[in-house]
Amino acid sequence: MRVAVVGATGAVGTTMLAIMGARNFPADEVVAFASERSAGRQLPFGQNTLTVEPLSEQAIAGFDLALFSAGSSISREWAPRFRDAGAVAVDNSSEWRMHDEVPLVVAEVNPEALDGHQGIVANPNCTAMVLLVALAPIERAVGIERLVVSTYQAVSGTGQKAVEELRAQARAVLEGAELPAPEIYPHRIAFNVIPQVETFKDGDPYTTEERKVIGETRKILGRPDLPVSATCVRVPVFTGHSESVNIRTREPLSPEGCRDLLSEAPGLAVVDRPGDALYPLATDAAGQDEVLVGRIRTDESAERTLNLWVVGDNLRKGAATNTVQLGELLIERGLLSARA
Amino acid sequence: MRVAVVGATGAVGTTMLAIMGARNFPADEVVAFASERSAGRQLPFGQNTLTVEPLSEQAIAGFDLALFSAGSSISREWAPRFRDAGAVAVDNSSEWRMHDEVPLVVAEVNPEALDGHQGIVANPNCTAMVLLVALAPIERAVGIERLVVSTYQAVSGTGQKAVEELRAQARAVLEGAELPAPEIYPHRIAFNVIPQVETFKDGDPYTTEERKVIGETRKILGRPDLPVSATCVRVPVFTGHSESVNIRTREPLSPEGCRDLLSEAPGLAVVDRPGDALYPLATDAAGQDEVLVGRIRTDESAERTLNLWVVGDNLRKGAATNTVQLGELLIERGLLSARA
Repeated sequence: MRVAVVGATGAVGTTMLAIMGARNFPADEVVAFASERSAGRQLPFGQNTLTVEPLSEQAIAGFDLALFSAGSSISREWAPRFRDAGAVAVDNSSEWRMHDEVPLVVAEVNPEALDGHQGIVANPNCTAMVLLVALAPIERAVGIERLVVSTYQAVSGTGQKAVEELRAQARAVLEGAELPAPEIYPHRIAFNVIPQVETFKDGDPYTTEERKVIGETRKILGRPDLPVSATCVRVPVFTGHSESVNIRTREPLSPEGCRDLLSEAPGLAVVDRPGDALYPLATDAAGQDEVLVGRIRTDESAERTLNLWVVGDNLRKGAATNTVQLGELLIERGLLSARA
Repeated sequence: MRVAVVGATGAVGTTMLAIMGARNFPADEVVAFASERSAGRQLPFGQNTLTVEPLSEQAIAGFDLALFSAGSSISREWAPRFRDAGAVAVDNSSEWRMHDEVPLVVAEVNPEALDGHQGIVANPNCTAMVLLVALAPIERAVGIERLVVSTYQAVSGTGQKAVEELRAQARAVLEGAELPAPEIYPHRIAFNVIPQVETFKDGDPYTTEERKVIGETRKILGRPDLPVSATCVRVPVFTGHSESVNIRTREPLSPEGCRDLLSEAPGLAVVDRPGDALYPLATDAAGQDEVLVGRIRTDESAERTLNLWVVGDNLRKGAATNTVQLGELLIERGLLSARA
């Protein structure tokens, strides 16, 4: 079992290696790939270290599995090459997610979708992922009729440089120093809120991130026409995406019923004693694999509608953890050797 | 015209004095009141300074107008005393807002409600205020059927100490120092998001802030049964409340129609060229009186529904500016002398 980790030096890549180490990922060999610039760097992996290699046609031969988190253009080019060289690629970029022949899978939600893969499997967007872990049990139990989501997204979702930008700006504001010009975001993010995540493309009033949340939610739930409204917002948080979710269900579901349902669901922890100031927080979600859900309450403004507050670590369950889980599922289900 | 400013040393009180100075508020004399502890402090007012006085039965005689921003318990006790001594009290606390005989007024929205006052007039909650400036023109033009609001609220809404808490915590996080224990909020607010604004009372799953947004929106629009859902969230921003608003209207309204409507409405500025990264930001709203609205777009998940992003300065239009405007309106409309 030879496993490639592509984009190993990034925010998600390093988390992926840490999670594989901690979970004793069943690999005989792990090879870390990154850009030419990072080649030769040493990365910790369990008790060992890995030496970063650059991608090349020769280097990618003989892998069973390739876990990608290196951005869309790398995935566009190199996921098919790994596939053609005999590996299954699990891709964390948005490049392949909406292709019909590519399964888009949340490990706890639709693992059966992996069965039909054709060499490339996609890991969902971090915001959609966190949302789906909480929504899927509700969809199964009572059906979802409509969703209105507003997000509070952490900067590490953008990458390491965004984390540094937030730190540098926050320091300047606190010291009363001149603000460094924003480079990663279009505006200052420190002590601010930016109602734009990713880009506005071709005059669309929704951002590409909002389109991902809508499109990926539909694909993962197998509900191509599910009514979903999304407003994606960046907040000055390092790690942990929070989401305010308004859900109309097909059949009635009480807050107590919802709490019971979600308490038993995989990958979720219900944190919902608001009177004791217990509800999901980004600072609590950061560093753990479970998605937290709380503030479950009846929306009195409409029939069969609940409000929820959902928070997940965008680097872990939102990205690295699910990628590693998909690798494990592919191995367990014998879906790698099937291609040999 | 003798005007009292009660709570003059607080975050809203100092802003109130600055705004009165800048607008040449038509007062012959302004007296600044605050707690015993602040008595004797000098406060700037226009070209002059005011000396802070403590509240006492003798000191409150002979005023025409008293502008309050000193918290509910002070307002409960002292607004009726000022009223009984012949003044009209404009109160910025939540104490009197929902009393039937007390007009709850946004200057641009329902100034006519002042006419029936009985000596106490209430200034709305900052989150409701910012929302109402944007909603009222829509309600008038096409009617509102339902609202789903998620907020991103600044710490200065809580007061000066919350601003200091955010600064101290942020500094500790950036320096890797031990975090001071939170005193103002139940959890760390720096680089975090807290889905609780104000308190959970008597087992209600909605916070008192969320109840204010719902109840005050209904009262100001004169729609006691308007379906409103609110999720109020504190974010690490110093000043500027942002709100993600989903509105179903009675009659259809296109995004273009909505933009035109709001462009002509008082107290509002439309900032809506997302392709050029132009949309309302807390950092832009802070320090100005206009409420900013943008990201106006069709919600494709439902009939006759729009999404908006609304941002306003919680200390200015959300509190001090409107209080001063209500004072001006009471003078202009001859509603002070009417009581003499």
